[in-house]
Amino acid sequence: MSVAEEAIREANARFYQAFEALDLSLMERVWGHGEHVRCVHPGWPLLCGWEAVRGSWEAIFQNTAEIRFTLSEVRVTAGEDLAWVTCTENILSETQGRLSVTSLLATNVFERAGEDWRLVHHHASHILAPPAPPPDTMTA
Amino acid sequence: MSVAEEAIREANARFYQAFEALDLSLMERVWGHGEHVRCVHPGWPLLCGWEAVRGSWEAIFQNTAEIRFTLSEVRVTAGEDLAWVTCTENILSETQGRLSVTSLLATNVFERAGEDWRLVHHHASHILAPPAPPPDTMTA
Repeated sequence: MSVAEEAIREANARFYQAFEALDLSLMERVWGHGEHVRCVHPGWPLLCGWEAVRGSWEAIFQNTAEIRFTLSEVRVTAGEDLAWVTCTENILSETQGRLSVTSLLATNVFERAGEDWRLVHHHASHILAPPAPPPDTMTA
Repeated sequence: MSVAEEAIREANARFYQAFEALDLSLMERVWGHGEHVRCVHPGWPLLCGWEAVRGSWEAIFQNTAEIRFTLSEVRVTAGEDLAWVTCTENILSETQGRLSVTSLLATNVFERAGEDWRLVHHHASHILAPPAPPPDTMTA
């Protein structure tokens, strides 16, 4: 793994640590703060710009009693100044007294900021059943 | 708009033209062909590597009689050698005799290939209702 890939993997892990901690100030340090920042929470419309994204985390943190992530299949592809990560978020959460276990797929885009990498886009969505593709498309 | 941004916007449009044409050879020209290529069709598990992604398009094209995209809110953020696009896919489709209209959110990641840009990741998901955030988080 390259130095950049390791740094991106760590930045990705810090995002989920901030989410688990339900800590807005940690989340602020994970994200870039520009107008180009975007976010798709599962099923939500697209949020554009850091203010809207920050507001969404504030709302989510207020409505979440506890959330625990186990990440699997974390794949990092790094460019010069941008990188993208896909991972499976295996989530144990309690929202308004209700406990749930679910798996989401996430695409996270990071932007280089010196030695560090900042999250600029998060797109998470639920895994449902595929629409009956031939078996050979599902093996890789 | 920069020259790169325009080229990325065109590459993004060609992806949807290939999808509308249900033409696998056009789709092959739009995508990068590496092992790092990935794809999340709405609700599907993650597909990894060009062979799996190509197989999914073959299956989708075989099961789709007609599909028409109107894109809205196409936003491009370009780096040196990677770029990411978000857009709303407003879709009119006919699958197994059933006509449907739906809106999806897509994240498309492109990789520079000389003057051209190749799609290396597509993540599309349905827009549902947001989980009751405060109104101010939804305005931007």
